Amino acid sequence: MVKKSSNKISPLATKIAKRLLPIEGVSLYTYCANLYNKHRNDLSIFLFHDQSFIAEVFTKSSLRSATLDWNSKVLKGREVEAIVVNAGNANTFTGKQGEDAIKKIVKKVASQFKISEKKIFVASTGVIGEPFPTQKVISAIKKRKNPSKNWIDAARSIMTTDTYPKGISIKTSIGNQKVTITGIAKGSGMIEPNMATMLGFIFTDAALDQGVLQSLISKFIHNSFNSISVDGDESTNDTVMLTSTNAIKFKKKINSINDSRLRKFKLDLEKVFLHLAEQIVRDGEGATKLIEINVKNAKSKISAEKISRSIANSPLLKTAIYGKDPNWGRVIMAIGKTYEKVKADKLKISFGNYLVAKNGLVNSKINDQKLKTYLSRKKININVDLNLGKEHARILTCDFSHGYIDINASYKT
Amino acid sequence: MVKKSSNKISPLATKIAKRLLPIEGVSLYTYCANLYNKHRNDLSIFLFHDQSFIAEVFTKSSLRSATLDWNSKVLKGREVEAIVVNAGNANTFTGKQGEDAIKKIVKKVASQFKISEKKIFVASTGVIGEPFPTQKVISAIKKRKNPSKNWIDAARSIMTTDTYPKGISIKTSIGNQKVTITGIAKGSGMIEPNMATMLGFIFTDAALDQGVLQSLISKFIHNSFNSISVDGDESTNDTVMLTSTNAIKFKKKINSINDSRLRKFKLDLEKVFLHLAEQIVRDGEGATKLIEINVKNAKSKISAEKISRSIANSPLLKTAIYGKDPNWGRVIMAIGKTYEKVKADKLKISFGNYLVAKNGLVNSKINDQKLKTYLSRKKININVDLNLGKEHARILTCDFSHGYIDINASYKT
Repeated sequence: MVKKSSNKISPLATKIAKRLLPIEGVSLYTYCANLYNKHRNDLSIFLFHDQSFIAEVFTKSSLRSATLDWNSKVLKGREVEAIVVNAGNANTFTGKQGEDAIKKIVKKVASQFKISEKKIFVASTGVIGEPFPTQKVISAIKKRKNPSKNWIDAARSIMTTDTYPKGISIKTSIGNQKVTITGIAKGSGMIEPNMATMLGFIFTDAALDQGVLQSLISKFIHNSFNSISVDGDESTNDTVMLTSTNAIKFKKKINSINDSRLRKFKLDLEKVFLHLAEQIVRDGEGATKLIEINVKNAKSKISAEKISRSIANSPLLKTAIYGKDPNWGRVIMAIGKTYEKVKADKLKISFGNYLVAKNGLVNSKINDQKLKTYLSRKKININVDLNLGKEHARILTCDFSHGYIDINASYKT
Repeated sequence: MVKKSSNKISPLATKIAKRLLPIEGVSLYTYCANLYNKHRNDLSIFLFHDQSFIAEVFTKSSLRSATLDWNSKVLKGREVEAIVVNAGNANTFTGKQGEDAIKKIVKKVASQFKISEKKIFVASTGVIGEPFPTQKVISAIKKRKNPSKNWIDAARSIMTTDTYPKGISIKTSIGNQKVTITGIAKGSGMIEPNMATMLGFIFTDAALDQGVLQSLISKFIHNSFNSISVDGDESTNDTVMLTSTNAIKFKKKINSINDSRLRKFKLDLEKVFLHLAEQIVRDGEGATKLIEINVKNAKSKISAEKISRSIANSPLLKTAIYGKDPNWGRVIMAIGKTYEKVKADKLKISFGNYLVAKNGLVNSKINDQKLKTYLSRKKININVDLNLGKEHARILTCDFSHGYIDINASYKT
């Protein structure tokens, strides 16, 4: 398959990392398994040297990748010795061949690095329904490599049609001890020829046990990776993993996320989650605008989220924002089509600080020129105040552009 | 507002009606209320001369038009003396001004034609949130007009950015008596500056009481108007009305839709529903391909519908079809993201007669060239066989094209 796409970096890209810190207790190996026939790196192995823990969350898709079935099983052991990630093939809808591929690769990695098969995690992104290129991956793993000092190499190796690598490192502390967090992700550049897959891998050298990791991932996943949308299409391969080595130990073990020593660490870990999620949207297919939707004062959290997601996924609203059109009638439509009970005369809608509708009516004092100027920005905020309760939801999305159509319609098989 | 749009007729248009039969017992008046400042007809009144019945279905939007609130009330009387329809303003999110507009217009129509206010129905399509131009409508109604002989005039008057008028007349029979059905609809050309609104009005001269009409509309609405999608965005103004005059009477009254005399009539009425619904999709914004999705052998009807709708509304699938790309991986994705339990190894997917996936695997015998040729047609069938049960769902949609983006992003306020 040949993909017609420019390699231009997304106009919404900010803070592109050039350097990511390695995490003590983990070695990163990157390989070219030539899965794209382009001689680029497309395979990474994170090797954990000492007892390390992992928490993982999965796509809810009912036709998920064989990789996620595998991980669900090994996750029961709570420990991790390696994570193997490839781009170029999603290992989805590959039947027994796909399952066997994982077994063979895991076996090879276990023997190569002398680790346990049951502590090896896998993740794949790429084409759906094509037989998995097991041999290519195994041949690559056989090559002796030196570990990468700059983890941006991993971020690059998992890119599909992402226009830039996504990653962040933060030096933070737990109690009075210095610890490091490094996270990488890939997103919503389209993969050949299928769909946007969101993968996230977040590492820390702090000795946190698996229960703590699980609580942390549950705490932060919702407002980050689960509160973004590019086109409302959910991948079969989405996954986010959070791991800890035991490089930085604590005299008194940390057993709960409510441990006061975690205060700063939690803030910084949340930053990593939010940063990676936002970067995925900023690299959304054909995106020219980042849109932040805030729905406040809803009756329930579920209602706030339903409404924010409906607005975020409305093709009509997304095309309007692309066209710099403050078309708040489409916000009304997107709220209405959730069937959530709302009151028109209590509703307030604003674009940025510009109130466009209130009390069930258009705001007749809108300054059209100022509003137009606001809509020409790269980041647009849409605020909906339902005035019905106290719950809030926030979602990040991007606009629908000619670029989206180009990227997704222009294959040449 | 100036809309940048060509007036080219949709490439998917078929059987554009030039003539529609009037229904005995109803007079049609069309007016120019100049709601577009373009001197086109934009207002129609259907006047019923004798006792006539009506059934109506509404959008489920929780922010629906004031017109639908009005109709919900008068529908309780089950009878109709007039239907007043305008394009150019949706009377949605117009607050008390919008409610008052309806009262004033209904009062004017009642006095002009000497009918009861409580038997007047209204429908509007057009811009959301702008004050309703009551006076323009009332001034238009004051003009003396001759009834239209060709009901295509009504179909034209309700167009917003539809590229052609939609209507159908069928001469049929009930028992041994000849009766006529005429239906008109408007759809998914975008309205200025808001959303696709679906309006349908279906008339017959057969004396059927309101209970029968209600049963008929319930029977046919689901597989027609409720089984189409252009972009998954539901309007605040969607409505379909079915009316009967008592021009053609039956010696023995018809009290049930199971009356054997209705056999042929029901088949033809269903044709009218299906035709109008299909025409709306064929005139979908920027549509270049009509897509029919059939999901069969699902465990439940709800499951079949959820899956078919997910496929129909997937921007990734719609852009792929636009690009003539037989990207069945996106069908897999769209099935998976419903979270419905399916079995990969039982699933069959075909494009037209071309099987692309079965038994959880790609069909390795696909003839790529023939498949490509199939994908270049104007009508594409996507068939999903879940092999889990006996339920079926069918939905019509269209592709997502550059035209869609042009139409919806290119306002000049």
